[in-house]
Amino acid sequence: MIALAFRYICRKEVKYMQPSKLPERTVERLSEYRRTLLNSLNKGVTHIYSHNLASIHGITAVQVRRDLMLIGFSSNNKKGYNVRELIDFIGGILDSDHVLNVAVIGMGNLASAITAYFNGKRSKLRIVAAFDVSDKKVGKVISSIPCYHIDDFKEQVRNNNINIVILTLPTQEVDSVCGLVIESGIKGVLNFTSKPLTFPEEAGIYVEDYDIITLLEKVAYYTKG
Amino acid sequence: MIALAFRYICRKEVKYMQPSKLPERTVERLSEYRRTLLNSLNKGVTHIYSHNLASIHGITAVQVRRDLMLIGFSSNNKKGYNVRELIDFIGGILDSDHVLNVAVIGMGNLASAITAYFNGKRSKLRIVAAFDVSDKKVGKVISSIPCYHIDDFKEQVRNNNINIVILTLPTQEVDSVCGLVIESGIKGVLNFTSKPLTFPEEAGIYVEDYDIITLLEKVAYYTKG
Repeated sequence: MIALAFRYICRKEVKYMQPSKLPERTVERLSEYRRTLLNSLNKGVTHIYSHNLASIHGITAVQVRRDLMLIGFSSNNKKGYNVRELIDFIGGILDSDHVLNVAVIGMGNLASAITAYFNGKRSKLRIVAAFDVSDKKVGKVISSIPCYHIDDFKEQVRNNNINIVILTLPTQEVDSVCGLVIESGIKGVLNFTSKPLTFPEEAGIYVEDYDIITLLEKVAYYTKG
Repeated sequence: MIALAFRYICRKEVKYMQPSKLPERTVERLSEYRRTLLNSLNKGVTHIYSHNLASIHGITAVQVRRDLMLIGFSSNNKKGYNVRELIDFIGGILDSDHVLNVAVIGMGNLASAITAYFNGKRSKLRIVAAFDVSDKKVGKVISSIPCYHIDDFKEQVRNNNINIVILTLPTQEVDSVCGLVIESGIKGVLNFTSKPLTFPEEAGIYVEDYDIITLLEKVAYYTKG
């Protein structure tokens, strides 16, 4: 438990997070395990050992076993974990009971890529709408989802029961939509702009900032001599 | 030092990383601080306090000061950190002495978004080439970079002195390029496909796997009631 507590402290930042939730890195790894397990199942694999799962993800088998212990999964046997059971078990932890609807704000290349890539891959998460201001996009169906004017955001969030937004609009425009996000009762934000976001705590909004420049700078740092 | 050591253990995974390098989360935060500092400088801000920097990033001022202590930056005074000096100092840590050239494999929407977004933002990292197999793309200039056939990969890596690749090709095709990446002496990989990658240790390749599904699942997890 000490090790787990430390891991939690390490990643814990001063942002809104419900108590009694799993640490962020554990959640990331569970999502990654499930992705691998789904691929394995598609290939006809029925059982997998912790060391196989670990090797695919470049981590230790101890780490895999610790993560699964933390969520209470313990059906490991001589044949390894049952792939189908583990997929369902992780789903029980990560997924909502009902489908969570997602909207994209800023319908450019990144939004198109995310939408095309994502939809159909998970049953409990669905990108259902996009918002933009350009005449070329508003009113059209792009990457199979309808694109609305940002002025209709609150109405469409209500109509489509949207819980989460992905921000892919230009960084200089991000401030102009923050008020809308709060007022419409959105609870989760995946932010791809260059501006880190903080919302008032009472809004209860979980934010994940991800700037692609940071990823590339990190690779560059570990690559340089 | 104990706290730092623990943070390092937390994030340390069994993947290729040179010894004596900073922990991954520290590198991410330094990149993020620099992004904020560059924005501040553009707005005419000359000095910034650790608590301001912390508040923008949703972390504690103690964390900011600890990160900057770790890289040996200590010019904090009553006016706060000198923004220009801190930008240069972080650059001295993160950046290579020479420009690192980057190539994209798979010239779709995601690659276009990344290239358009990235180029021009950092002086020591430059996306210089794309590779694809489609007749519609090969031989064209897309998002201001030339697109070559993947068959010419090794030759172009040599000609353009490419050090890093970004993988944005379909997941089912990723296996087919791994050999090429090793043989051509690439040292860093930013992997956006759904398949986690591991290379033989002797190849000395640093890999950063990033699946957008994981990011979205993480937001969904912390969003659900």
